[in-house]
Amino acid sequence: MCRHCTSNKSNICQVLGLERNGVMHSDRKTRFSIRGNPVYHYLGVSSFSEYTVVHWGCAAKVSPTAPLEKICILSCGAATGLGASWNVANVSKGSNVAIFGLGTVGLSVAQGAKLRGASRVIGVDINPEKGEKAKDFGVNVYLNPKDYDEPIHEVIKRMTDGGADYCFECTGDTRVTTTALQSCCDGWGLTVTLGVPKAKPEIAVHYGLLLTGRTLRGSTFGGWRPKSDIPSLVDKYLNKEIVVDEFITHDLQFEDINRAFELMREGKCLRCVMHMPK
Amino acid sequence: MCRHCTSNKSNICQVLGLERNGVMHSDRKTRFSIRGNPVYHYLGVSSFSEYTVVHWGCAAKVSPTAPLEKICILSCGAATGLGASWNVANVSKGSNVAIFGLGTVGLSVAQGAKLRGASRVIGVDINPEKGEKAKDFGVNVYLNPKDYDEPIHEVIKRMTDGGADYCFECTGDTRVTTTALQSCCDGWGLTVTLGVPKAKPEIAVHYGLLLTGRTLRGSTFGGWRPKSDIPSLVDKYLNKEIVVDEFITHDLQFEDINRAFELMREGKCLRCVMHMPK
Repeated sequence: MCRHCTSNKSNICQVLGLERNGVMHSDRKTRFSIRGNPVYHYLGVSSFSEYTVVHWGCAAKVSPTAPLEKICILSCGAATGLGASWNVANVSKGSNVAIFGLGTVGLSVAQGAKLRGASRVIGVDINPEKGEKAKDFGVNVYLNPKDYDEPIHEVIKRMTDGGADYCFECTGDTRVTTTALQSCCDGWGLTVTLGVPKAKPEIAVHYGLLLTGRTLRGSTFGGWRPKSDIPSLVDKYLNKEIVVDEFITHDLQFEDINRAFELMREGKCLRCVMHMPK
Repeated sequence: MCRHCTSNKSNICQVLGLERNGVMHSDRKTRFSIRGNPVYHYLGVSSFSEYTVVHWGCAAKVSPTAPLEKICILSCGAATGLGASWNVANVSKGSNVAIFGLGTVGLSVAQGAKLRGASRVIGVDINPEKGEKAKDFGVNVYLNPKDYDEPIHEVIKRMTDGGADYCFECTGDTRVTTTALQSCCDGWGLTVTLGVPKAKPEIAVHYGLLLTGRTLRGSTFGGWRPKSDIPSLVDKYLNKEIVVDEFITHDLQFEDINRAFELMREGKCLRCVMHMPK
């Protein structure tokens, strides 16, 4: 095992990495092909396949009673948000939390913060439909930046006597990470960035925000170690300690995958589960 | 007391702030004047004066046996570096530490890291004289970026099997903060930024450095609470638990203050103590 796998401080195996190259680690080849053309992995897990061959480090054994069509969403967004709240930020009881972006990741951050006893969870999103839905997941206050003439971080600072204790960027827009950092308080304010940006990969951080005691932190998959932690999360779901079903707004057949992409782009869904043909 | 003073997580009083306006908090006036013109405070402490009037929150009572001409340097740089190492980063035994900028702040970070039992302290500076001096303060390995064709973060990553556990930026150049973040490891790498930049106040942070588990943190005065912690630091000095005298490379009369500025600009000194006329 690598230095990271033997440490309890990291969830990023230095041997397997994020396995972005789409082949098996051992011989750098694929295990499947179609008409002579290789069929590649995605992130080492082969999404959109019912059976596959993966490196043992990429497989997790979960309770056989768990419904796969529900727990599949613990493989990314929903688990990432819970982990960001619990592992990365370690949200404390009675704290003020601000979440930027109320998709699956943001809402699972909210669930995590609520379960930790946060006193106020502020959700920020430019889509009012997301704001309505967010109340089911623990968001107490919904803010739409379009409703304000002043920058949203000023609104949050006023609501929280100087800034939130914890801010979470869940949009994939690095400009929002800057806003999140501006929205948290002097002294101990922590911003966790979760999104993966499509454009502008650099986050601009004014030194003064750090000088006055703020911290900016990131993580992959909310700091969970998939092999050992996904089984625990599945158990928490089965014991009704966390909600998962509520993130699934649509069940679609695989042939309707383009409809699922449309729903995502239009902001009409949280998670669509794709069902394979019987 | 304010929310920050009653918390043990912050050292930034929200009532007094950094008192940059140069007047007393109570009536927004000065206590001294010369020929009818007000004489202002600097950062609430009235540097370059033997007697003064300050807000009670800005005064600290230290051991009467401590030599003021030595402990004066605990009022900033030397204490800041120790605090960055102990309070902000909480450097652990056996860790790899990289320090960018080997002035008083960087060297006091080194002292703090050495006292915590860091296994390797790497010091980076473009001035070779600073590199030589640094060995007295706990720096094991001196690197001059000018000696390498490749970026210095690549050199550090190779030396430390993937990156240092803790990096400290002590230069006041925000580009160096980016380099420091690139020099620390995946998973748990922490960069503490201490410098106050003269230009380019925005730090550029590639999201990928955060996604793979790094943290960027800042602080004022190394997280120390001056009123209660300066007396403790003075006691540590008197008990020989920390070195302070070694930071003072020059003692000059106040009339030679311009010479002191020259020494600082030329990188020929660490701290110059200015002595008032008798």
